Amino acid sequence: MSLLPKSIQNLINEFSKLPGIGPKSAQRLTFYLLKNPNIDLQAFATAVANLQKDLIYCSICFNMAQTNPCKICADNKRDHKLICVVEDALDVVAMDQISDFNGVYHVLGGVISPLDGVGPENLKIAELLQRVGKLNSAEIILATNPSLEGEATAMYIARQLKQPQFKHVKITRLARGLPQGADLEYADEFTLSKALEGRREY
Amino acid sequence: MSLLPKSIQNLINEFSKLPGIGPKSAQRLTFYLLKNPNIDLQAFATAVANLQKDLIYCSICFNMAQTNPCKICADNKRDHKLICVVEDALDVVAMDQISDFNGVYHVLGGVISPLDGVGPENLKIAELLQRVGKLNSAEIILATNPSLEGEATAMYIARQLKQPQFKHVKITRLARGLPQGADLEYADEFTLSKALEGRREY
Repeated sequence: MSLLPKSIQNLINEFSKLPGIGPKSAQRLTFYLLKNPNIDLQAFATAVANLQKDLIYCSICFNMAQTNPCKICADNKRDHKLICVVEDALDVVAMDQISDFNGVYHVLGGVISPLDGVGPENLKIAELLQRVGKLNSAEIILATNPSLEGEATAMYIARQLKQPQFKHVKITRLARGLPQGADLEYADEFTLSKALEGRREY
Repeated sequence: MSLLPKSIQNLINEFSKLPGIGPKSAQRLTFYLLKNPNIDLQAFATAVANLQKDLIYCSICFNMAQTNPCKICADNKRDHKLICVVEDALDVVAMDQISDFNGVYHVLGGVISPLDGVGPENLKIAELLQRVGKLNSAEIILATNPSLEGEATAMYIARQLKQPQFKHVKITRLARGLPQGADLEYADEFTLSKALEGRREY
């Protein structure tokens, strides 16, 4: 590999550190940047260097933001008693693409994962309970991922919210079932069982 | 998408410009950079910014290099009468991984592609002919890709090298056939026909 000039090899090495990008993809990306006259290398470099610049967290929902409180938390047209609890900022982006949701968010900043050394105290769970405690009625939608850790986190939060001081709180979880366009034939057993369990009158 | 802070959206946009990286992958890469403490953003940014810095082309083989002539062309242990003609620098990397090859290279800088406005005059073909003309005997391995443009380019160069002043030159082309580990059942007709045509006594 020492056949390539150092500046090229450097960028290939950097790209290789990214998830899902192997050595061949890293080469391809680097050569694309090198050869494509439409790419502004300086703009790219600046975007990387400034990634963490000016980044603040909303003190209400703990989403990454440019202002505090963030745009969503400052929006009076939203229902601030409907709180969707998600793992991270990308989940907020995904949820907010569906126009039916008019509530606000609470970003946990991860999931409970003992293997990675992440306990409930590392997430914004205490802050969620405090936030909910101040409301006189609320619905909390637990929208962590349907993974092992996501389920465990949702279960942990639900248990906390079932304490007597949260009597005013309704706890819900996103529905499980077949995704749009799925093929029954290829659905896994677990999904199918959840779809059957959650069936509705037609 | 305006939900994300500007610095994050900026980098997502930059990543999205790269080939094979869609909006979702760009988000994932950006958040990986943001959250992974092992990634040095400044090192990445510097690698991008300096990509084209100190980059020179070898005046013999036209490969990208840090010295002129490049390491390969300056290597006396190599057979300078065995010239492997390739499309670009990554092909040199690929070819030089096989230890059986001890010749040198000639990097065309692309392929003849009328649709993209690339003619023979835009490639280092004249330079190849000049280089070969100075040798008293030589083998030219045409190692352009087995694509439509690669074949056309190889054919064009072969035709040039068949002129009387290149009588001392042997022209070869990389073998076509089934790749290692291939499945006969899934091989395309063209590959199979080439494999049959090039069959050898066992």
